[in-house]
Amino acid sequence: MADSLNCDLKSLSPLQLFERVTEQGEKVRALKAGKAPKDEIDAAVRMLLSLKLSYKTTTGQDYQAGLPPKDLVLINNGTTKEEDEDLVDPWNVQTSNAKGVDYDKLIGITLPSLLLRNLCKVILMTTETARHHNKSRSKHHRDMDQILDAYENKKPFYLYTGRGPSSQAMHVGHLIPFLFTKWLQEVFDVPLVIQLTDDEKYLWKDMTVEKAYEYARENAKDIIACGFDINKTFIFSDLDYLGTSAGFYKNIVKVQKHVTFNQVKGIFGFTDSDCIGKISFPAIQAAPSFSSSFPQIFNGKENIQCLIPCAIDQDPYFRMTRDVAPRIGQPKPALLHSVFFPALQGAQTKMSASDPNSSIFLTDTPKQIKTKINKHAFSGGRDTIEEHRKYGGNCDVDVSFMYLTFFLEDDDRLEQLKQAYTSGELLTGELKKVLIETMQPLVAAHQERRKQVTDEIVKQFMTPRKLAFEF
Amino acid sequence: MADSLNCDLKSLSPLQLFERVTEQGEKVRALKAGKAPKDEIDAAVRMLLSLKLSYKTTTGQDYQAGLPPKDLVLINNGTTKEEDEDLVDPWNVQTSNAKGVDYDKLIGITLPSLLLRNLCKVILMTTETARHHNKSRSKHHRDMDQILDAYENKKPFYLYTGRGPSSQAMHVGHLIPFLFTKWLQEVFDVPLVIQLTDDEKYLWKDMTVEKAYEYARENAKDIIACGFDINKTFIFSDLDYLGTSAGFYKNIVKVQKHVTFNQVKGIFGFTDSDCIGKISFPAIQAAPSFSSSFPQIFNGKENIQCLIPCAIDQDPYFRMTRDVAPRIGQPKPALLHSVFFPALQGAQTKMSASDPNSSIFLTDTPKQIKTKINKHAFSGGRDTIEEHRKYGGNCDVDVSFMYLTFFLEDDDRLEQLKQAYTSGELLTGELKKVLIETMQPLVAAHQERRKQVTDEIVKQFMTPRKLAFEF
Repeated sequence: MADSLNCDLKSLSPLQLFERVTEQGEKVRALKAGKAPKDEIDAAVRMLLSLKLSYKTTTGQDYQAGLPPKDLVLINNGTTKEEDEDLVDPWNVQTSNAKGVDYDKLIGITLPSLLLRNLCKVILMTTETARHHNKSRSKHHRDMDQILDAYENKKPFYLYTGRGPSSQAMHVGHLIPFLFTKWLQEVFDVPLVIQLTDDEKYLWKDMTVEKAYEYARENAKDIIACGFDINKTFIFSDLDYLGTSAGFYKNIVKVQKHVTFNQVKGIFGFTDSDCIGKISFPAIQAAPSFSSSFPQIFNGKENIQCLIPCAIDQDPYFRMTRDVAPRIGQPKPALLHSVFFPALQGAQTKMSASDPNSSIFLTDTPKQIKTKINKHAFSGGRDTIEEHRKYGGNCDVDVSFMYLTFFLEDDDRLEQLKQAYTSGELLTGELKKVLIETMQPLVAAHQERRKQVTDEIVKQFMTPRKLAFEF
Repeated sequence: MADSLNCDLKSLSPLQLFERVTEQGEKVRALKAGKAPKDEIDAAVRMLLSLKLSYKTTTGQDYQAGLPPKDLVLINNGTTKEEDEDLVDPWNVQTSNAKGVDYDKLIGITLPSLLLRNLCKVILMTTETARHHNKSRSKHHRDMDQILDAYENKKPFYLYTGRGPSSQAMHVGHLIPFLFTKWLQEVFDVPLVIQLTDDEKYLWKDMTVEKAYEYARENAKDIIACGFDINKTFIFSDLDYLGTSAGFYKNIVKVQKHVTFNQVKGIFGFTDSDCIGKISFPAIQAAPSFSSSFPQIFNGKENIQCLIPCAIDQDPYFRMTRDVAPRIGQPKPALLHSVFFPALQGAQTKMSASDPNSSIFLTDTPKQIKTKINKHAFSGGRDTIEEHRKYGGNCDVDVSFMYLTFFLEDDDRLEQLKQAYTSGELLTGELKKVLIETMQPLVAAHQERRKQVTDEIVKQFMTPRKLAFEF
């Protein structure tokens, strides 16, 4: 059956194939949701796999949810929507449903990994906002519409994100913006620069320059282990790169000329007792927003638009950058904010790399993961087993459940867990056991990938060079 | 006679020869001062020239006043002074005269050019202070004794000076610290780094980054035209070099971590309305004081002592630097202050490159020089010719006379001019004419040397590289 199906499918265009895969995905989900007989579901899943295989044979690419074949992405640009359907790709979010787009449904079916669920929600909401709402009402992005316009008009742009390497060990929450960024890079197929602000960490922490630089290189390994394309990605340490690019320093000094102490005092809360390094640092985080900081990538071209995916706590830096940009003749960078990942102790706080118990680290052993989750993960369960059985747990505040929404691949399983926990059927210890069994292999797999990242690979990623793009 | 003299002299050691030259120089001066018959003076001068030739043949070096042959400089280290004699070299200043060292006498005889008169006074006073007085009482240097100790102990050190390229045209006053520095480099035979703070000028002035960099390169030509040794001197623009040396940026960020806004506010008078570039700039002027900013010169070695010859208005930067140095594990740079060169309008103000009438510029034509001196040089003469003839002029405030003390080669002529002006015999216009006739060929000669400085030579001076020293 699969063979004859493949024969039929060969006559389809890439976009038609893409739509068939998407439809079949929806069918599988509907069958599962409708508790259909197992053999019916299995047949639909087999069909889905065949369709995906065919899609790959025809397009040379793996099927990726929300990502139609490259040269066809604009076909559905708000013009072909049908009644009662959601049309979603990175550039379109439309729905006829009065309650708005059913993100869970859309994402549940089509995204390659549930890990990206929350991230994609952001970008989907963002693009929707950019397209359809008053821009000033959005807290999730700044000028994303300009990026979409640039993409539509085949104008070049690039991605810029970063990390402050405050400790050797990164935690699982640190992966979120990088996976988000990786997804964006795959969607847009544009250059990516990743800044490691080792100078910032030296300035803020009790740490030597050498240690900060060492952390930067160690963190680069974890970032590379996320799977970035070495031909499209440049990772740099400030302490290192500032001394190899006159273009970068020129942009820094331009920003520094156009921002007063009063302004950084207002934005970052600096005081007169702060060191002058802290006071001028915001310019160093701003400068990679301008393409002339990377002459080797952009062939010396200025004014190439930048999109910055970052956690919302970095927004002050880029608000300042956007304020300065026009005054130094540069385009304002666009922003996309990724969501915070909660600390084990609860959603009110962000994970901190300096508190080993605030998070699961990418270096943790299976035993450490087990201990941390059992000991520190804030529970939404009741005080006693009796009360829990009677009133049920609260998924909205239960950190184990929140983590599972990021890391559990199986949507149905997640839904079952939610119901069981809320009803009191599932105890906190049992929920934690699911999280432990999810995180242990995930972290182990990351460690395995990280082991493959040699010093030579790090060096290549961190060498200023031309990427696989013409400018 | 000269031949037989040379035969006798061949048996003398370099130091003995040095002393014979010095003695003969003193004899010539005494004869001149005593108005001896012309033929007697001429004979003494011929003997002096023969002695100098013999000194050159023996040592392979030109005789230089105050600079005994290299390996012998320490013989007279305060242990061999005789009664009623001044013993002066760059490392010793001693006198039995109650009125102190007769600088004019010493310098008048022995220094290669009177242009250096005032500069050398500073270093002589400085070394005297360092050797014999309470260090804190000196306003002319900081820790010069450490440099002398380093020299005595054959420990390496280096010179660092700089210039803010605020305009394309430098004036004659700008030459003073560079000629001072050149003399120091020849005395000590050590590497020299010259910082052009084009970033500073961009931050402070209404000027583009490109223009500031252009000025830096143009100013480099004038500096090179002073005659610096290309094998021993590295000239750098901040805008350029910061992007080619990770060592430099690391030192900048180290300084920036150890200086607060409160401190720079106190030292430089910054306010909350100043841009963050100005606020952090002092670290950029501080960093070249540390040898690790120049790994290419010092083979990556840290902690090599630095001596900074500079105008006294730069002292605040280096007071700050000296405060920070021990806290970042670096030696404090030593300082030597050169004197200010007065503006044409009077000694109260420094020349300014931004006011074309405040000074004689190195680009001025003979006509411009004439006009400026006649029109703007502040006169110490009387209001009317009658009064001037009766009461005489005041050399202490007459700018034309002050300039002549820097630029007139002939000591006796200078003394004659002083007496004639003070007595009223010489009128202001006549004194100005002497200055005009002195400055016109001097500036023309500089312009001629500057013409020889090609872009290629500038590029060589400004290329980070190993110099002619082993570290």
